[in-house]
Parts: sequence; structure tokens; C-alpha cells
Amino acid sequence: MNEMNNQVARVFARIRTQTPLIHHLTNFVVMNDTANVTMHIGASPVMAHAAAEVEEMVSLAGALVINIGTLTPDWIEAMFLAGKRANALGVPVVLDPVGAGATTLRTQTSQRMLNELEIAVIRGNAGEIATLSGSGGVVRGVDSIEGVRDPEAVLHIARTWNTVVAVTGQRDLVSDGRRVLGIDNGHVRLTQLTGTGCMATTVIAAFAAVEHDFLLAASGALATFGLAAELAASAASGPASFKLAFFDQLFNLSAEHVAAGVRIVDLTP
Amino acid sequence: MNEMNNQVARVFARIRTQTPLIHHLTNFVVMNDTANVTMHIGASPVMAHAAAEVEEMVSLAGALVINIGTLTPDWIEAMFLAGKRANALGVPVVLDPVGAGATTLRTQTSQRMLNELEIAVIRGNAGEIATLSGSGGVVRGVDSIEGVRDPEAVLHIARTWNTVVAVTGQRDLVSDGRRVLGIDNGHVRLTQLTGTGCMATTVIAAFAAVEHDFLLAASGALATFGLAAELAASAASGPASFKLAFFDQLFNLSAEHVAAGVRIVDLTP
Amino acid sequence: MNEMNNQVARVFARIRTQTPLIHHLTNFVVMNDTANVTMHIGASPVMAHAAAEVEEMVSLAGALVINIGTLTPDWIEAMFLAGKRANALGVPVVLDPVGAGATTLRTQTSQRMLNELEIAVIRGNAGEIATLSGSGGVVRGVDSIEGVRDPEAVLHIARTWNTVVAVTGQRDLVSDGRRVLGIDNGHVRLTQLTGTGCMATTVIAAFAAVEHDFLLAASGALATFGLAAELAASAASGPASFKLAFFDQLFNLSAEHVAAGVRIVDLTP
Repeated sequence: MNEMNNQVARVFARIRTQTPLIHHLTNFVVMNDTANVTMHIGASPVMAHAAAEVEEMVSLAGALVINIGTLTPDWIEAMFLAGKRANALGVPVVLDPVGAGATTLRTQTSQRMLNELEIAVIRGNAGEIATLSGSGGVVRGVDSIEGVRDPEAVLHIARTWNTVVAVTGQRDLVSDGRRVLGIDNGHVRLTQLTGTGCMATTVIAAFAAVEHDFLLAASGALATFGLAAELAASAASGPASFKLAFFDQLFNLSAEHVAAGVRIVDLTP
Repeated sequence: MNEMNNQVARVFARIRTQTPLIHHLTNFVVMNDTANVTMHIGASPVMAHAAAEVEEMVSLAGALVINIGTLTPDWIEAMFLAGKRANALGVPVVLDPVGAGATTLRTQTSQRMLNELEIAVIRGNAGEIATLSGSGGVVRGVDSIEGVRDPEAVLHIARTWNTVVAVTGQRDLVSDGRRVLGIDNGHVRLTQLTGTGCMATTVIAAFAAVEHDFLLAASGALATFGLAAELAASAASGPASFKLAFFDQLFNLSAEHVAAGVRIVDLTP
Repeated sequence: MNEMNNQVARVFARIRTQTPLIHHLTNFVVMNDTANVTMHIGASPVMAHAAAEVEEMVSLAGALVINIGTLTPDWIEAMFLAGKRANALGVPVVLDPVGAGATTLRTQTSQRMLNELEIAVIRGNAGEIATLSGSGGVVRGVDSIEGVRDPEAVLHIARTWNTVVAVTGQRDLVSDGRRVLGIDNGHVRLTQLTGTGCMATTVIAAFAAVEHDFLLAASGALATFGLAAELAASAASGPASFKLAFFDQLFNLSAEHVAAGVRIVDLTP
């Protein structure tokens, strides 16, 4: 995996050279955090959700994040407008189906997005992805109760949806339908904070903006994200001091850290 | 009050065993903070406000927070849908009437909620509660200028409204209409940050989700909240370092800390 | 500039004596941060955006912030309602045209506000102000790519608009159309965080609430803001630890610090 590590480090370095604009239609809970994470990883955030401007805004962007964490009908309309324009322009769309499985609105909207938009990467927890794939997930609020944890199942889902699927958990699983990779970077502190899944999605979007092999982009992003968490954890005495250290570490990461620290394994059957 | 302390500690421990889902319809300013506080106290947060999904979401929840801090008409509709479903299902509803008294919209909406919903606990500052009770409060923005500080008055209001009333301030007052308790935990740093009242409401909801004696739940929650603030204050050199330490302390609290540290006095006349 | 420093320190001290209410119609990304900054500088924040209450709320306020960072049509309506009432009452209106130049919605709405409202201070980055003045700015998302950096040009824009114009950057430029001042306080860490421009606007509003010489208010606010950043930077090992230290420093600033530390130069041609 040494070559993989170097590839990830090169993608990471490109983010900081190109500072791509990442257009977010995301939830109210995490907007501040994901804007900061976008900056710390080396990209530039913009949050804009008015139907009147999303098509214009996404045309300036390197990637589009659609995150349904606090969904309402007017946002759905804007998400489709932005997503369709992004597709037309070749701007990668990264979908975070927060809480799919918990309510019909979230499940059906996510399914419509998978059907009607070209999604570069979908990132969810095991319950969200299992629910959307019809393989029996259980989601309570935004937490995964039961879900998909098997590499072969993730591979199958990615092939069915014809997109890159990233299932985050203790070991993240990422597949493009041909290969499936496991990412072993990360730290339990990430589960003690709100919005860390949404932040991971944002980092995937920053990687996808500069690397159109989306399997590489998504797995590299999650490994880099997890690496920063590992580096932050030793300095933390609780979730809030961890969050502060994590943000600082994301900012202070170098390509050399990334090349040396990411742990990605090939789990393709 | 040693038995009271042990009761509070047992309720606190149950939150961490049961990790109840706390459904919030809350304001945009505090969403991130209250989601984190929900997690740090040991429960699980979800923010959802679309009329199309609130009834479904609240059916998964252990408690519902209704907080009117950034109120608009569409949110009012969703709040009543969620609140009525919560009432039908026996899910406790905790109301935070942010800014009641400052504008007619906030005052009238809060009064309608007190009239049309079964509220388990209402938590406000002295000005908000005084305004709503018709006893002459003055609220400027979201700050209490004049309000109710007398235990007997709080008891009377709780009896009139037939709900648990929690008035937070230097000494918090909590009554169910029969008894009135004073909570002496807390720290002045809590007044130097936005949203600490909203965070206290969230902690009350986490307690109410696992303890349906709402006098015990509300007073135990406020004492626990204040205890974490006390533990955090010595490490702080300003409000932001206090906030970080406070969140870490909430997370690191044990049932033993709670049993040893909460200070609740019976002020029943 | 010693007399200027003393003037700024006196305005600063008045904020803490009067604790003016600052009514914000601002974007979702920064609401929590700007509410805290409002408190730390010594004023009192309220966020309220319902058309049904903004006129009532602004009548309690010492200043009104209009920030278009996450603009939608219903917010535009509320912003004009609040702005017109503020004008009628003599409450200073501080405008932050976030992303003007990036989309037509933002550019046109900002121009309408400059035309139809009496704006006490407009604060933007170089690209936003240049775009709005028709002098060829380029804005990507919310970042300035090309803009106005010349004191004489800022003076000319302020004269044309008949308002105080504050262009923030490495050296901030502030003009009322007669004089133009440069503010040299600040730190590069402010560019590594989301929302620091919005926070600066909030501090300008707090100053404008207690000082109706808006050239003094805006330049004093930006200098004070930059001074806190300078004091915070040495303690920081990244943008998140900087943010924490910066908030603590804003809170811990004294009028003596301000008098000794602000660096304002007269650049009037």
C-alpha cells in the first residue's frame, strides 16, 4: 500500500495548491464545523441554498456536498437544482444521506437522489447505507443501529448504484463496485462529537474536487481524516478538547504526514 | 438531601445506559452546541424540523425539545405537530420559550404551547417566565431584565400551568406545583456564553427521557449541568476555554461525581 | 494617533457600560460565533428573522446587523422590514454583503440595500466592495480574488454611497467619504477560520450602537478586533486553538489594552 499512500499524499497536496471551492447544501447543525474543516484541509467553503442562486454558485465549485441532515421541501428543490447543474458541468456530487432510514422523507429523498443525480460518492453510516440498499438497516435518529459491515456487501451496493460507496465505522469500507478498500485510520473520539460524519463527507468532497478517481479520493479522504483524529487524540481530555486538537491537526497536516500515516488495505474478494 | 443526590445520580446513570434519542426543534444559534451537549451527557441528539417528518421522528424519541429561539411560522406548525404527537405517545415535551416577552410572536406562541400542548417542563429565565405568567417580567432580546425570583411565586406558576417550571439564574428554582427546589450548582461563566440556557434545557430533556418524575428530572439536570460548570471554571481563562472545559467535564462526569456534588435545597414554604 | 486610541478606548468602554442589544439577521454558518463575539465584546446578541417579529425586535436594539451569507427570498423581505424600521428609529444598520459578486442574488440584493436603506457601515472584503462599486472585483464563493485595495478608491466609494465603507484585508481601510483610515491590527490566523469577517461586522455593530461617528466606530472596532487576534496568536498551535484564545482575549480586553494597542493611521490623501 506504499504506492497508495503516496497517491493519497499527492491528492492531499493538490487540494492545498488548488484550494477548490466546495459548495455545500448541508444541515444547520454542522455548517460552521464543516466550513472550518473545508478550510483546514486546504479548500474553500461556501454555503448557499437559495433555489435562486445554487446553480450559479455550483458553477464556481470544484465539488458539491448534498447533506440532508435538516431536510425540508424547499431545500430538496434546491438540492436537485444544484445537483443537476453540477452533473451537467462535471462537478462531482458527494451525498451524505443523514438519517436515511429514520424517516420516510429522508429515505425517499436519498433514493430519489441516487436515481436522478449522478453521485460521485455517497458516504453514510452502516445503517443508512443498508437501509438505502434494501439490505435491512436500522437507523434511530442519525445513529446506525444495524447495518452493512461486510466488504463484499459494500462492493455489491456500489456496483448496483454505479457510484463510490463509503461506509464509515470502526473500519471504513469504500468501494467503486470493482474494488473495496478498508481504512483503518480513525479514533473513538470521533463518535463522541456531533457532525463528524458530515465533516468526513466534506473532506471527501475536497479530495474529489482534485481527484476524479473517486475510490482514491474517498478512501484517501477518510484515511487523512482518521489520521488527524489519531494525532489529536493524545492531547485530548474529552470530546471538546479533542475537537479543537483535531481541527488544528487537520490544518497542520503535511503531505509527508499523510504519506507516512494513512492505513488503507485492499479487501477486494 | 443525600437521598436526593443519590436519586439524581441514578437518573444520570440511566441516561448513559439507555442513550435516549432527544428530538430537537431548536434555534439555529445553538444547534451544534446542544447536539454536542446531548451526546456528552450520554444521550443521542437529532435535529429535525420539516412538518413532513417531525411526527415520525418524535415517535423514535425519548424526549422532545421545543425551543423558540429563532422562530418562524413554518417552524411553529412543525412544533405543534411534533408536540401533539409526543403528547399522544407519552414522550415528554420540554419547552424553552427563548425571548418570550421580547416580541409578541414569541410571547403568544409560548402561551399557545402552554395551552394546547402538555408540557413536561418549561425552562426559562426569570423574565421569560414572569412575562408568560403575567407577573410583570421584562425581557430585552433574550435577556431577563426583570422577573420572578421568589420560590413561592414559582410554585404558584407551576400550579397554575400544571407543569414543572424551571427558572434558571444564580439560584435555579424548580417547582411542580407542590414542592419547590433550589439548585445552587452553577458558575458565572455560564452567563458569558450564548446558548447556555438552551443547553440546560437539552440536559433537562435527557433527564426527562429516563425519569418521569419531572421535578426530579429538571432539578437533577440543572444541578448536574451546574456541577460540570463548577468543575470547568478553574481551568478556564475566559468564556471560550470555559466552554471547552465544560463540554469535556459534562462528558467525563460520573454518577459518583453527581452524587457527591449536586446541591439541591428544598424551599417548599 | 494617541488621541484616536483614547477615543477608541472610550467607545469600547461604553459598550460594556451600556451592553447594547445587537439584533442580527445573519447567516447560519456564523450565528453561534457572532452571538458569542457580541457577548465577549460586551454587548448582547439576539438573532431573529421572522418577518412577523423583526420590526418589534429591532426597536429594542442599539444596532442591526444585516449579513447575507446564506440568503433566501424570505430573509430578504425580513431584512428590508428590519432595516426600514431601524432607519425610522435611528438604529444604525451595519451591512455585510457576504459573497456579493459571486451570484446575482447576492450582488443585486446588496445593491438594493445600499439604494433603499440608510446603511451606517458596510463591511466587506476587497472583492465584494469592488464588485458593488462597479470597479471590477472578483469574488469566488465568499473569497475575494480581485478587489479594491487603494485608500483613495475606498474614499471615493464611501463618498458615492454616502456611508462608511470598511474594506478588510491585511490592512483594513475605512472611509466616511471625507477621511480614510488604515487599521494595521490583525493576524493571518483570522484568514484560516470561517466567519471572521462576519465577526468583525458584529463588532462594528457593537461599536456603532454606542458611537454614532461611524468612521470612529468602524475603525475602532476593526482595530480592537485585530488587537485581540494579535494577543491570541502566540498561544495558538492552529486555527482552532487560535479561535478559542481569540474569543477569550476579546472578553478579557480592557480599555487600557485598547488604548495602548490599536494601530490606526490616517491615509487621507
